[in-house]
This record gives sequence, C-alpha cells and structure tokens, in this order.
Amino acid sequence: MIEIEIGRIIIEDYSRRLSEHLENDVVIVGAGPAGLAASYYLAKAGIKTTVVEKKLSIGGGIWGGAAGYNVVVFEDKEILDEIGITTKREGELYTADAIEFATGLAYKAKKAGAAIFNLIEAEDIVLKEETVKGVVVNNASARTIKLHVDPFCICGRFTIDATGHPAELVSMLKRRKPELFPKELQEYFMNVETSEAGVVEKTGEVFPSLYVAGMSVCDTYNLPRMGPIFGGMLKSGKKVAELIKKRLKV
Amino acid sequence: MIEIEIGRIIIEDYSRRLSEHLENDVVIVGAGPAGLAASYYLAKAGIKTTVVEKKLSIGGGIWGGAAGYNVVVFEDKEILDEIGITTKREGELYTADAIEFATGLAYKAKKAGAAIFNLIEAEDIVLKEETVKGVVVNNASARTIKLHVDPFCICGRFTIDATGHPAELVSMLKRRKPELFPKELQEYFMNVETSEAGVVEKTGEVFPSLYVAGMSVCDTYNLPRMGPIFGGMLKSGKKVAELIKKRLKV
Amino acid sequence: MIEIEIGRIIIEDYSRRLSEHLENDVVIVGAGPAGLAASYYLAKAGIKTTVVEKKLSIGGGIWGGAAGYNVVVFEDKEILDEIGITTKREGELYTADAIEFATGLAYKAKKAGAAIFNLIEAEDIVLKEETVKGVVVNNASARTIKLHVDPFCICGRFTIDATGHPAELVSMLKRRKPELFPKELQEYFMNVETSEAGVVEKTGEVFPSLYVAGMSVCDTYNLPRMGPIFGGMLKSGKKVAELIKKRLKV
Amino acid sequence: MIEIEIGRIIIEDYSRRLSEHLENDVVIVGAGPAGLAASYYLAKAGIKTTVVEKKLSIGGGIWGGAAGYNVVVFEDKEILDEIGITTKREGELYTADAIEFATGLAYKAKKAGAAIFNLIEAEDIVLKEETVKGVVVNNASARTIKLHVDPFCICGRFTIDATGHPAELVSMLKRRKPELFPKELQEYFMNVETSEAGVVEKTGEVFPSLYVAGMSVCDTYNLPRMGPIFGGMLKSGKKVAELIKKRLKV
Amino acid sequence: MIEIEIGRIIIEDYSRRLSEHLENDVVIVGAGPAGLAASYYLAKAGIKTTVVEKKLSIGGGIWGGAAGYNVVVFEDKEILDEIGITTKREGELYTADAIEFATGLAYKAKKAGAAIFNLIEAEDIVLKEETVKGVVVNNASARTIKLHVDPFCICGRFTIDATGHPAELVSMLKRRKPELFPKELQEYFMNVETSEAGVVEKTGEVFPSLYVAGMSVCDTYNLPRMGPIFGGMLKSGKKVAELIKKRLKV
Amino acid sequence: MIEIEIGRIIIEDYSRRLSEHLENDVVIVGAGPAGLAASYYLAKAGIKTTVVEKKLSIGGGIWGGAAGYNVVVFEDKEILDEIGITTKREGELYTADAIEFATGLAYKAKKAGAAIFNLIEAEDIVLKEETVKGVVVNNASARTIKLHVDPFCICGRFTIDATGHPAELVSMLKRRKPELFPKELQEYFMNVETSEAGVVEKTGEVFPSLYVAGMSVCDTYNLPRMGPIFGGMLKSGKKVAELIKKRLKV
Amino acid sequence: MIEIEIGRIIIEDYSRRLSEHLENDVVIVGAGPAGLAASYYLAKAGIKTTVVEKKLSIGGGIWGGAAGYNVVVFEDKEILDEIGITTKREGELYTADAIEFATGLAYKAKKAGAAIFNLIEAEDIVLKEETVKGVVVNNASARTIKLHVDPFCICGRFTIDATGHPAELVSMLKRRKPELFPKELQEYFMNVETSEAGVVEKTGEVFPSLYVAGMSVCDTYNLPRMGPIFGGMLKSGKKVAELIKKRLKV
Amino acid sequence: MIEIEIGRIIIEDYSRRLSEHLENDVVIVGAGPAGLAASYYLAKAGIKTTVVEKKLSIGGGIWGGAAGYNVVVFEDKEILDEIGITTKREGELYTADAIEFATGLAYKAKKAGAAIFNLIEAEDIVLKEETVKGVVVNNASARTIKLHVDPFCICGRFTIDATGHPAELVSMLKRRKPELFPKELQEYFMNVETSEAGVVEKTGEVFPSLYVAGMSVCDTYNLPRMGPIFGGMLKSGKKVAELIKKRLKV
Repeated sequence: MIEIEIGRIIIEDYSRRLSEHLENDVVIVGAGPAGLAASYYLAKAGIKTTVVEKKLSIGGGIWGGAAGYNVVVFEDKEILDEIGITTKREGELYTADAIEFATGLAYKAKKAGAAIFNLIEAEDIVLKEETVKGVVVNNASARTIKLHVDPFCICGRFTIDATGHPAELVSMLKRRKPELFPKELQEYFMNVETSEAGVVEKTGEVFPSLYVAGMSVCDTYNLPRMGPIFGGMLKSGKKVAELIKKRLKV
Repeated sequence: MIEIEIGRIIIEDYSRRLSEHLENDVVIVGAGPAGLAASYYLAKAGIKTTVVEKKLSIGGGIWGGAAGYNVVVFEDKEILDEIGITTKREGELYTADAIEFATGLAYKAKKAGAAIFNLIEAEDIVLKEETVKGVVVNNASARTIKLHVDPFCICGRFTIDATGHPAELVSMLKRRKPELFPKELQEYFMNVETSEAGVVEKTGEVFPSLYVAGMSVCDTYNLPRMGPIFGGMLKSGKKVAELIKKRLKV
Repeated sequence: MIEIEIGRIIIEDYSRRLSEHLENDVVIVGAGPAGLAASYYLAKAGIKTTVVEKKLSIGGGIWGGAAGYNVVVFEDKEILDEIGITTKREGELYTADAIEFATGLAYKAKKAGAAIFNLIEAEDIVLKEETVKGVVVNNASARTIKLHVDPFCICGRFTIDATGHPAELVSMLKRRKPELFPKELQEYFMNVETSEAGVVEKTGEVFPSLYVAGMSVCDTYNLPRMGPIFGGMLKSGKKVAELIKKRLKV
Repeated sequence: MIEIEIGRIIIEDYSRRLSEHLENDVVIVGAGPAGLAASYYLAKAGIKTTVVEKKLSIGGGIWGGAAGYNVVVFEDKEILDEIGITTKREGELYTADAIEFATGLAYKAKKAGAAIFNLIEAEDIVLKEETVKGVVVNNASARTIKLHVDPFCICGRFTIDATGHPAELVSMLKRRKPELFPKELQEYFMNVETSEAGVVEKTGEVFPSLYVAGMSVCDTYNLPRMGPIFGGMLKSGKKVAELIKKRLKV
Repeated sequence: MIEIEIGRIIIEDYSRRLSEHLENDVVIVGAGPAGLAASYYLAKAGIKTTVVEKKLSIGGGIWGGAAGYNVVVFEDKEILDEIGITTKREGELYTADAIEFATGLAYKAKKAGAAIFNLIEAEDIVLKEETVKGVVVNNASARTIKLHVDPFCICGRFTIDATGHPAELVSMLKRRKPELFPKELQEYFMNVETSEAGVVEKTGEVFPSLYVAGMSVCDTYNLPRMGPIFGGMLKSGKKVAELIKKRLKV
Repeated sequence: MIEIEIGRIIIEDYSRRLSEHLENDVVIVGAGPAGLAASYYLAKAGIKTTVVEKKLSIGGGIWGGAAGYNVVVFEDKEILDEIGITTKREGELYTADAIEFATGLAYKAKKAGAAIFNLIEAEDIVLKEETVKGVVVNNASARTIKLHVDPFCICGRFTIDATGHPAELVSMLKRRKPELFPKELQEYFMNVETSEAGVVEKTGEVFPSLYVAGMSVCDTYNLPRMGPIFGGMLKSGKKVAELIKKRLKV
Repeated sequence: MIEIEIGRIIIEDYSRRLSEHLENDVVIVGAGPAGLAASYYLAKAGIKTTVVEKKLSIGGGIWGGAAGYNVVVFEDKEILDEIGITTKREGELYTADAIEFATGLAYKAKKAGAAIFNLIEAEDIVLKEETVKGVVVNNASARTIKLHVDPFCICGRFTIDATGHPAELVSMLKRRKPELFPKELQEYFMNVETSEAGVVEKTGEVFPSLYVAGMSVCDTYNLPRMGPIFGGMLKSGKKVAELIKKRLKV
Repeated sequence: MIEIEIGRIIIEDYSRRLSEHLENDVVIVGAGPAGLAASYYLAKAGIKTTVVEKKLSIGGGIWGGAAGYNVVVFEDKEILDEIGITTKREGELYTADAIEFATGLAYKAKKAGAAIFNLIEAEDIVLKEETVKGVVVNNASARTIKLHVDPFCICGRFTIDATGHPAELVSMLKRRKPELFPKELQEYFMNVETSEAGVVEKTGEVFPSLYVAGMSVCDTYNLPRMGPIFGGMLKSGKKVAELIKKRLKV
C-alpha cells in the first residue's frame, strides 16, 4: 500500500540523515538569525554543518518584527542582497518583511547544504579533555511534557551557541564551572548604537571549541540588548563562520 | 535616538501595509501549503492577495513531516521544480526536506508579491447580500488569552478557506446556516490513493465568493485524509488560484 | 566517540525495526491486559504482531489494582500459570501482585516475539474497500502538546481495538459511520457476574478486519463494567488471538 | 465598505498616535493611582506625557477597594475635589466609590491631554550615558503567552516608575546594577501612619532621569505598606509631576 | 488604630450600600457600553439602578478598540457630546479614545447616581409568577476557582441583560425554556450597515420584566455582529432606559 | 520504632473500617447538608450507614454561606436545636454560623455512628436485576490527575444520591437509561418560597433502591433552586432517612 | 421578597460580625489543630479571639489522617476527652476518626465563643513600635486568581502564627528582618519521639506580641517533623493559650 | 456479592502487605534500573526489601530508550543474561528492547521476592541518632494535587537513594545539613567513557545507613552523565546490594 511506502520512505530517509549528522564539523544550536546565517556561510564553504532547533518552526525572533508588527530593520543591506531579501530604504536604515527574511534565510541555508533538525532540543554539552565535543539532545516534545526519557548526542569539532537570549550552552557551562562566568548571564540595557557593533566584536570562542554568536553574545558579555534590528545578528553569524573556517583551514 | 527611529519606521511601515491590504482581490486564511501555493500563483498573476495566519510562523503542518521526521513526500515534482525545492526520487515518489519546502514556498510567495500577516486570526466572516466579502480578524495573542477585544475586517472579492483540517470559515458558515452543510465537517478515514485526486477535484467555491482549498476541502466534503504527502495540497492551491483568476478575468 | 556510536546504533536499530513493522499480520492498539494477552498468543503462533501504545509505559489499568491498592483479582488462574504469574487463592478467587502481572505479561509477550512501540498514538483508521487496513499513528508527545504534525501508518491484515474504555478505534468508525453504532459507546453499570462472561463472548470482529478485545468490547456493546478483576481481559485477548489465527489459517 | 473604513481609520489613527508618542517629555509606566495622577498634573501643565499600561484596563489596584469591597479611603480630599470625585466624611477620613475614583481620575487625565496606551508592557529600560532615556516595550498579550517577539522603545526625557508594588523599572536597574540597591526591593510591614507621609517624602529621582512614584517608592525604600488608603498615592503622583515640571522649567 | 478604622469604614460602607441595593427599580447585568449607557439614563431620571459586573474593572469590550488598537468609532456623536467624550471627525465617522470613552461613560453613570458593583457575577435568574424578579449573584473570584459557595439575590422590578455576546441571562432562560428561543443564541455574520440599526430596533423586553440591550440583542435575535463601532451600543442603552422609564411612568 | 507503630495502626484501622463498610444498609454519596442529616438520622436509628465524599473535607456548600459571607439561614430551627446549633432570630428567619453548622452536623452524625470516608469518589452505580446495589468508587486524588486505575465497590441495600447540584448518581442512570429522565437534569430558576417545600416533598426513591435527597432532588425534578437557606436540605435528609427506616422496618 | 430578606440578613450579619472582630484580644492565623485548640482555650476563658483561615473549610491537615487513611493518632487522650472525641486504645497509643476530630474540635471552639472567618488570607503583618499588632488580610479567592486588590487589617493585642508547615507570619518577619532568623525556616527530619515534646516546649513568643504554635514551631526552630500524630498540636495550642492568658491576666 | 468480595480481598491483601513492609531490612526509593537491580539481588539473597515508586508504573527512564527510540544499550551482557533479557551485538556494544528490559527486570525482582509499592512517594527521611532509619512517604496522587495530608513511614535498617537524577534523599539531607554536600547536587557534562566506571565506583554509603545507587551517584558526586547506556546502572544496583549484604552478613 502507498501509505506504508510513504511511512517507510520518511522513516528511512530521516533516520539515515540523522544518523549521518551525528558527527559533524560544526553543530549549531538555535535556528534564529545568527544560527541560520552561520549555517549558510559554513555550508557554502563545504563544511559539514548541522543546526538543531527545539521549536517546530525555525526563525527564532524574526517572525514578529517589533511587538508583532512583522517588519525588521537593518543598518546596511549587503548580506541581505547576497541572500536575496528585498529591502526598502528608510532614512539611514533599511526595512524588510519579517516573513520574507525568516524564510529566505532558512531556504538559502538549506540550499547551501546545511542540515537542520527541528523539534530537537539541546539539554547538555558533551565535554572531554576540557573541550566541547558537541551537544546532548532530546526529543523536544517529550521534554515539554517532562517525560522521563534519555537523550543522545550530536557531536561536532566545533559547537556554536546561537540560542539567543538565554545563552543556553554557556549557561550549562556556567552551572558546572561558575568560576568561568562570575557575572550573571544577561543582556544590559538597550542601546542600539553600541550593541550592534559590540555583538559582532565579541562573537567568538568562549571555551575550547565552543563559540557564541548572536544574542547569546550579549548575555555572555552583558552587552546591551538591541531590539528588532537584525544587522548585528547576521554579521555575528557570518563572523563566527569565518572564525571556524579559519580553524578548519577551509 | 536610533531606538525611536527604528520603532517609528516599523510602526508606520506595518500600519501602512496593513491599511493598504484591508481591501483585496483575494483574502486567504491560513498559511499552510495550500494557502501559500494559492497565494504564490495569485500574486504571480498580479492579483492583490493577502494571507492571514494566526500563528507566529507560517507553514502549517509542513514543518514536522511525519510524526516529527521532517521529510515530506510528493507524487510528482512539477510544482516543486517551479518553486525551486530539491527533490529526491524514491520509487514512485519524491521526497523533500520539510524545512526547505516550508521556507521555500513562503519565500517564493512573498517574492511573487503576496502580503502575509502572521499573528492575525480570522474569527468570523463578513457576509453581505449572501456573498462572502472577507473576514473578521483579530490579534491572535489577545484571543489566546481571551481578552475582550473587538475585531476589524480584511476584505476581498474572493475569500479562500485554507485553514486546513478544521475548515474554520466553512464552520462559521455552517454554524449560522446548518442546512448548507448537513453532515459533520470532518475528514474521512485515510486513503491516500483516492484523497490526493479528490481534494484537487473538489477544490472550488462552496458559497458565493468563498472557496475552499487544501485539507479544508476534505473536511467540507468528507474526503479521506492523506498524511504527509503534499502533492494534493499544492495542486489544490494552484487550482483555486486558477479558478479565481478566471473569475477575475486575469 | 562512543556517544556517537550509541546514538547511531539506537537510531538505526529503532528505525529498522519500525520500518519492518509498518506492515503486519496484526496491529494491536493498546498495551493493556487484553492487548498484551492477544499479542502474546498471536506472536507465539508465529504471527507478525505489532502493538502500539500511546503512553511511555505499557500495562494500561493493571498497575493500580483497585484505587491504587496494587492487587489484581482473577476468577481462575490457567492463563496466569501459563504466563508465570504467582497467584494466591482467596475463597473462590485468586489474587496476584499488579506489578508482577503487568511486567510478567509484557515480558512474555516480548519474548514470544511481539513488537511493542510505546509513545505512538493511533489517531485514525486506514480504510480501503470498506476494510480496515491498519491505523494512522503519530508521535504521542507531539500530539499531547498539540503540535501540528502529520501522521504515518502502521498497517495489518487485521487490526485489534484494545484501547480499553474509550474504544478509540470503534469511536473513529462511529464518527464517520454513525449508523453502524446507533447507541452511545459506553459501558453499562457494574455487574461482575455478567460482564466477565459477556466480554469474552462478544470479543470478535465488528467491521471487516477490525476486532475488539477487552474493555473496548464493553463500550462497543454496552456490557457491564467490571472493576479490578482481570480474568475476562486475558480470556478476551486469548479469544481474539484464536479468531485471527483461524482467519490466517495458522 | 464601511467595515474597511472603520478598520482603516482605527489602524491609522492608532499608529499615528503611537508613532507621535515614541518621543516624549515624560514616559510613565503604570496607570494606577500614582501614575494617573502624575499624568494628570503633567499634561495639565502642557508637558507631553505618555502612560503605558500592560493590562487591558487602567486603574491598577483602585477597583477592588479593600478585599473587593469597592470603597476607597483618603485622609483629605483636596485633590479629589479638584478631579471631581464625590467624597463622604467618616470621622477623620473620607471615602469614595472605587469605580468613580478609578474612572474619574483616568478620564480627567485624558481630558488634560495625557496619552495612555494600554496592553503595552515595559520589559526593559533604555540607558545611554548612564541616563535613563525611556523604556523598551512590547505587546502585553504576546508576552503573556511567551511569544518570541522583539520589542520597540518609547522614550522620554524623564521616566516614572509607577508600576506599584513590584517597582518594575527599579528592579531592572537593580538586576544589572545590584550595588545601587543593596537591599531587597520590598515594602515593609503595614503602618498607615508613617507610610502615607513617607511615600510622598521619598517620591523623586532614583537614578539620572528615572523617578519613582506611588507604591514603587515603598518597594524602593522599604517603606511600610498602607492598604486601601489612596491619599499618599495621589500626593506622590502630584509631587513627581511638580519635580519634573521644575526640571523642565514649566 | 487607623488601620482598623479604615477597615471598619470600608466594610460598613460597602455592606450598607450593597444591602440597600438588593432591591431596585432596575438591575443591569454587565458594565459594558450598553449597560453603562442604560444606567446613565436611568439614574439621571432618578430611577434606582444597580449594575453588577463580574470583572474587576468595568467597560467590557471598549478598552481594546479594534484588536488592541485603542480607538473606537461612532456613526454620530450626539450621546458622546452629552457625556463629554472628545471626538474627531474622520469622513462619515467619528473616532474617540477608547480609554476616555470607557472611563468617561462609567464616571458619568456614577455621577448620575447609578450603583455599580464589580466582582459580582450573575449566575441565575429569580423567576416568580413567570416574571423575572432579579438575578442570583455570587462572588466572581470564588466562582472562577470553582469554590462550592451559595449565591444571594439582587432584585429589581426590571432586569436588563447587557452581558454582551453571550447574552447570559437569555441563555439561562433558554436552558429551562428552550421553546422560547428555538434558534441558537448567536450573532450573525458581520454587517455593520444593518447591525447598528437592528440592534437598536430590537432592544426591548424578551420575557416579562427582562430586557435585552447591546450585543445581547444580536445574540438573542441572530442579528449581524458589528465590530469596534459603538454607536449602536449607546443608542440601545439609551432606548432600553426610555422603555423602562415609560413602564415606571417616570 | 514509634513511627512504624503509628503507620501500622492507621493502615490497619483504616483498612479494617473500610473493609467492614463495603457492605451496608445504606450508602450515601455526598457529605453536604442533606447527606450528613440523612446519615445522622439513619445512624441514630442503628442502621449501618456509610457516607462517601470526594473532597478532603466534608460539608459541601455550607462553609461559604452566601458568596463567602459565612452565615446560613433557616426557616425554622427544630432540627438545629436537636443537633445543637446556636441560632439567632432575624424577623421570620433564623441564622447560624456556617462553620458551626458544618462541623456540628458532621460531628453529631459521626457520634451517632455513621461512617464517613472522604477522598473517595463515586464513579458509577452497581446495578443488578434492575436494582441499585451500591456505588463504584475510586481514589478521588487519582481520579483528579486522571490516573488509569480501576475502582472498587461500596454496596448497600439502599443508596442515596446526595451529591447536590450535579445529581451525579441520577446522571449515571440517565446516561444509560435516557428514557427514564427525558428532561435535562437541572435546577429551575431561583424561587425560595416554592423550592423549600418542593425539595422535601419530592425527596424519595427514583429507581429501585436509589433515593435522592437535597439539591439532587431539584436537579432530578427541575425544581427551583434556593440559595443559602438550608432548612429544606435538613428536612430532605431527615425525610429520606424516615423513608428508608420504614423500608428496613426500623 | 424572601430572597432579598435572606441576602440582607446574611450581608448585615456577616459585616457586623466582621466589623466587630477587626479588633481583638487575640488573632489566630490558621484553623488547623493547633489554631483551633488555642482558640478553644482562649475563647473558653472569655478572651476575644478571632481565627482567620484562607481555605473554605477548616481543619488543616487533620482530614486526611496519614496518606488519606482518615485516622489520627495521639499519645494521650486528656484533651480529646475534654473536647468529646471518641478514642480507641491501640497499644501505647490512641486513635480517633479524623473527621470526628476535625469537626468536633472546630464545633467546640465555636461553641466556646471563638470567631472563625474562612476564605480570609493573611498576606502580611501590622507592625508598630516593633510590636506585632495584627495581620493584613485579604479575600483568599481574589488572591488565588491574583486580582490586584488591596487588603484590610484584623488586629489583636496578640497574634498567633498557627499556619503550620510554612510558618507564614514568621516568614514575613524573616523577609524584612533576616537577622532574626538566620537559619532557613524548615522542619528537621522526622523523629516522633523528640518532636512531640519539642514542639510544646518551644511554643511561645518569637517577637513582641507574635506567638508560634503547632507545626509553625517546628519550622521556626528546625524541630523534627512528626507525621499523623496530633497530641503535640493540641498541647501546643493549649500552651499558647495559657501563655497569652497569663499576659492578659485572665 | 462478588463485587464486595473483590474489594474486600484487595483492601485486606494490600493493607496486610503494606503493614508487613513498614519495617524492612532495606528500603529502596525509586524503581528505575538501579533500584530494581538492587532489589533483585537483595531479595534473591533473602533480604527483606521494599521498593517505593511515586509513579503508577515502574521502570524509570528505561522505557523511552533515547529520545523515545525504545532501544537501550549496554557495554556487556552478563547481568542481562542472568535476568533473561535478549541482547544483540552491535560492534563493541549490545542493544536490547527497552520494554523487554524494563518489564523483565521488574518481573524478576518481584519473582525474587522484592515488595514494590507504586504510587507512594518519599517526601522525607527518618533520622535518629544521626542514622537514617527509613523514609517518610505519602500518597503520590494526593501530593500531586497538593492536598494537605500527613505522611507515614516505611523504615529499614538500610535505605537506598535510587531516585535517579534528582538524588532526592540526598537532597533532603543537604537541605538540613548543607555542610555535608557543599557543592550543588548535579551531574557533570556527558562523558560515557568515564561515567560508566565512575558511577559503579562511587556507589556506596553517603551517610550512616543511607546508600546511593544509579544516577543519584552522579548527582551526589558530580560525575558525568551518560545517556541511554544502562550497564552502569545495573552494576551500581548490584554493587549496592553486595555492600548491604556484607553489612547484614548475608
């Protein structure tokens, strides 16, 4: 029966793909703007890249623009032009449609070769010889209803915390190694002028083989938050990709 | 301050866009596969088309493939090739990545010129002279927490119920005109062979100026459900676009 | 790394097993006493049998005995002796430990060769040519949190509704074919004397290729409910296995 | 159609008004008795004043009087006479109807020219050069259901924390600058005699350009709480208005 | 101690007022626009009028304008001018600030002499000799948490169902006397043109001594719904006051 | 250890008592005023009587008086004098303290010899030869969290539905025998004058060996509801005791 | 109408009683075994005593015995004999029916003259000149649903924290005066032998005019917890009454 | 009637068994893999062993394998062979069916003579003379809905904390004796290679008469977590049994 055939194809295709992506060059946690941008640039460079996202849909905080007004703002449009997002000039700034930006960015990352697994939640870090080797993941629905179920691992030579405001992977580090991050992980007060530059500047490695990108950078370094302006997110994603490419000598 | 400038641009841009799309050629409720496909073909034909979606993200039931295995299946790949979705042949069927399909379809609909408003929920129909003139909509978050807040209207010469399994607009009709739909609105048992063809065949006008497309067709006509095979959804979306284009003489 | 190896083995082993059990001789929905007993007798006869259970653990209503007093009662002990459950004679009745009964029954069913998939929920029936061909299933956690995710199918030449009190599969039939079950699906008032015999007598086929066993029989035929006496459940499970074995000429 | 016209007028009117009030002389967070009184006196002096309130209705803790007995008590009635609230002498005290007080106060503030935006929640502070420049706000409904949506800013030369018992803006300051507020932000034990005078005395600036008024003063300075006596709230609101008027040289 | 004095005054003042308003000329259930307008006109005519409202704040659906954009629309401004609400002409329509409208209307009703009890929920009707004699009320908080607590009664020679969309009092009638209201109580599809006139026309007595006003009229007579245009609500409130004044020969 | 001794005594004492009360002359479901009064008069006559109550505490709707004002009203005080409840004359009526009434009534029922089991919920009826033989009960906490746990039975020669407003046992009858109760089980509008007398008059047997008492009578016969006046409840409880005493020839 | 009369009597009776008990000799928070016993002995001595209880019913942890087995245990029966509770000797211990104990104790306290107000929750302490003067209370239902409603005060020359395990009043003290209670307020491990004696010994004044009794003593002094043995609770309640009687020179 | 007989047998059988197991050689809290393995080896040696489990079913984290893929992995199969679990070699590892493993392990523990009580939750420790004497337990359902109900005790010469990740008993110790466990109780990052050995090595006594086994060991000693590999759990359970057997000189 065709119903069986459909099920069989999907189960086999998915498990083959998941099994093939248990070991990667780079694992990115979080499919928001920074994580997707990083995956786009890494995959384009031929680097084996897997993104895990706990929600059913990807895009993170892009969809709602500001307060649900689905418009996003950028300070320049170079990366947007490269991805193929239509922009409109408004004074010194550029606007784009939030839905076009979210879907266009993910679509191009997929086309570039990134693997994206939604409904998979990182619940911990794999750490060996004081180096991050990947993440411990689980079924996000089962976790939501607090089922007592063990996780499995998705590993990578490098891991990127692109989880946004909570900086989830850095928090896991801090919980066991509080001395590494003596200050509370949190954003500072909003100040767009300094935050856009700061988040890019501080994007980088925070622990052997663990990188932070996007809003996780703000939480880690107590940088100002910024609101619905997404240029810094894209540049941070691009920068983390550049840094890892250098490490991988690509 | 730049913070004020960002806010001002977003509020003005959004409200201008929303205000401009209160009156449309076609209003589509539901940004799942059928609604997006319809919007793609309508917008491409230069027809003023607005999609309203109550969730924060678009894509409906595409993201999770089957049971969360994010792979989707198709019986042929013509429309997918047109949209630019990578497919893989598996026996008589084709598979695609669910995330690529969801984002690619929405991205292309946006590029074709469709307006998509997320976080907006249709709560009723506008009916005048026994003709559907559009939908009564509200802020979806406010509705979720049951705030007592009045709605507004988004109108169109034609309205498409692409709400999927609940067939929400048809349900609103049935509630006041039960004689029109004497049987319960529900899908029939799964049977992929007959459902894929049936859903396309029955796609069309169910009440003056109200069309059904996608899974709403199954609920309206008690057709079999089909599972994670999406060819019928795309064809239904394309067909409803063709029917309306004829009415609009485009 | 061994972490990757563990993940790979589990994913591949599970998906192979799931893929191999999409097509079965018999699909049983519900891993309570009747479903497990049926699976034990069918598997022992070499029939390819798959049980799907929406909960994380199996056993249904066995664990709590009566009102949480974890003791269960039987009118005779023949099947229990065969399975290997310790019983104690109390007047005309026999008692057993609820935990020993739940685990012993499932353990023996597994040993006999039945496949059991937990966390998989049947959400509909596959129906072709007026014959039940299996069930439409989904990830139970995703359903619990109402994620919009498509299902897949697990098929069988015969399907057993062993879902207990709700008689879920029969309800799905009734929803689309109310004329088949004109009375409400519900148990009648408690009357142990008549219910134990009645449930076994009425165990059987209710629609082409769909069988009912256990408490689903009570709901389907409005038989009396019975409380924490499990002899009828085991006999119903054994009887449905016998009936299907005859059909399969085993 | 008139339905479209109504929607268009509302959307445009609201967005124009919101856009015009992104930049203010004074932003007040919280539309309880102190915030409304402050807005009344500021607006009456011709100062551009915007109040943001996260609830759908304004009035804060006024509506329920004591324990839901909707009567409120005052020690004198000068401000009430000015606003137009009927009072009744009871011994040394005055009572008023809670509903008349809540609605009369807001109505007069609006008539005086204050802008009030309900359903808008302050989620952070804008801080530049160690001066508070306004607040980061978001759609309150979206926040209630924890949608991942970015905020925007409403700025002012001065900002008033009139959020009542939680002293929300001061809490945001304390989270990032714990050294400024070494003690826990909380009210002290109830003592009406000392609290009414204390709350007025301590009303003022707590950080460059950030003022506290009303119960937020009690939390910030650990003053006694007071219960359903509202004279101090009105006087605190009036005092903060006076202080800011002096700064603005009005 | 002053704390005791404050408590004593409030308890005694409230219970005296409540006790005095157990028997009225008119009881109005619901403090939305129609109920408040009715109370304003009745109280102004010297009729003893009590409004009960289950929420903590009054105003019903006024506060949020359309979808949270806090602007309300009217077709003419006669009543608004009388109440003292600032309006702005927009084409054929008038707009007002939703917060000014909600608070101004309630404030003027109070000033005219209406008694308003919030946090009191009507849970049933008092019916004697086939005439409605008032309503059975309870503590709304206790009902929300489903405490098993008996109600008391607030009676009137006439009772007005101004509960809005649910038409709660009419529903209570229908539950026991289904033959009186053979059709489902619900609004019809939105059609502003016909609904504004219809709701005023049908405002009146539906059962001896029970009147409907405002949106309850739409539900009772299946009239079209109307959205954020409030002229009909005010006129319906005014009309029901006129009708009762005639009955009372005021 | 004394800790073990305490546990052992309680477990053995409780289970002995529960075991001894599985078979009774009379089983009463619901420990509100009518059920407690019935148990008092039955036990005083030496009849073996067991009350089951699903809540942790007994007393039903007595505790809150009216709307939480913990005062209850009676039309005469004969039964109260017998039980030992202090009353105060107020015009034609008598008041008592709700807490004294709830605790005094239960205390005297216990002293008279009634067995009361709290946290035990009746989930069905035992019916044999068209006669009610008792109730099917379960652990109320386990039911609240929807644990899948079987019930047990508490039987009696006579069973009293004193469950109050829902008339739970009668509802269970009606669900399987809708022809017996063609009208919806519900109270009629409030009318104290006729309800107090009516509820006593209609107290009696509704099905072989099943009696109704208290508010269950109102629901069964659509009698008017009455509010916080408890004379009828006591008299109904007393009357049902008298009727059963006659049947038992006590 | 009698309905109005009933309401008027209840409202006036309750508010008179509440108003009369705003000022007391002793205020007891918590109507569990210790609070009720204290109120019994205080009221019997002619001391004006008011108990406030946040739940609808009184009795605290008595009702459920151990784990819902509704039997309670005592080491001696002197107080029980005085109150009139039937006991049964079991070895060195005595058992009583939990329901008889809960209701008998409250009934006798009421008969002795104590005032008990249920559904009233203490949310804070009144403190003047470093002496506790009573408690700040509110409507418990309104607090449960987090309504923003102000409290009122119930005062007493002495206040008893009989809130049980949380030691709520002591916690309120500790929150503002952490130096008074440097250790966490919590019970120690269970040890019945030492806890029964300890709780009585430590019963007494913890701050000027604030006494602790019952399990609050254990939390305050980190004494062992004890389980379903209630002798210590009664003796603690009796002792606190003795101590206060001495202070009041009764 | 047989219904009464069934109830009587269950209640008496359960309470006799529970009463007999209030005093034990060993009490194990948690029926996951380590607790069940320990109970199997202890019971096999003739030691009186009682396992308490708060859930309705036993098995802990076994059922779901990894992320719901119900397959479990082991490094060797010696214990599995002894218990009778089918394994499959995969490279250096062995897999087993999660359901077979969970049910087989519990079934064999029961057959060996262990008593298992489900739905019973340990809420504290019994501590005398600085030695753990057992646990304070309660009805788990009543605790889930936060009923105020006292506990009872299940005692043992030795107590095993096999509660898994939360290390519940050790947490209770730490709460009162923080100096014993200065570090936060938590697992370290995942590292299968070192954790499997570590957990066995550290299995043992942590406080007089209190042992830890299974994942509780990881939390207590901050050892790495391990994921769905269960060899260490079984060995830890076996080791704790060996250690206690030595103490008991069995």
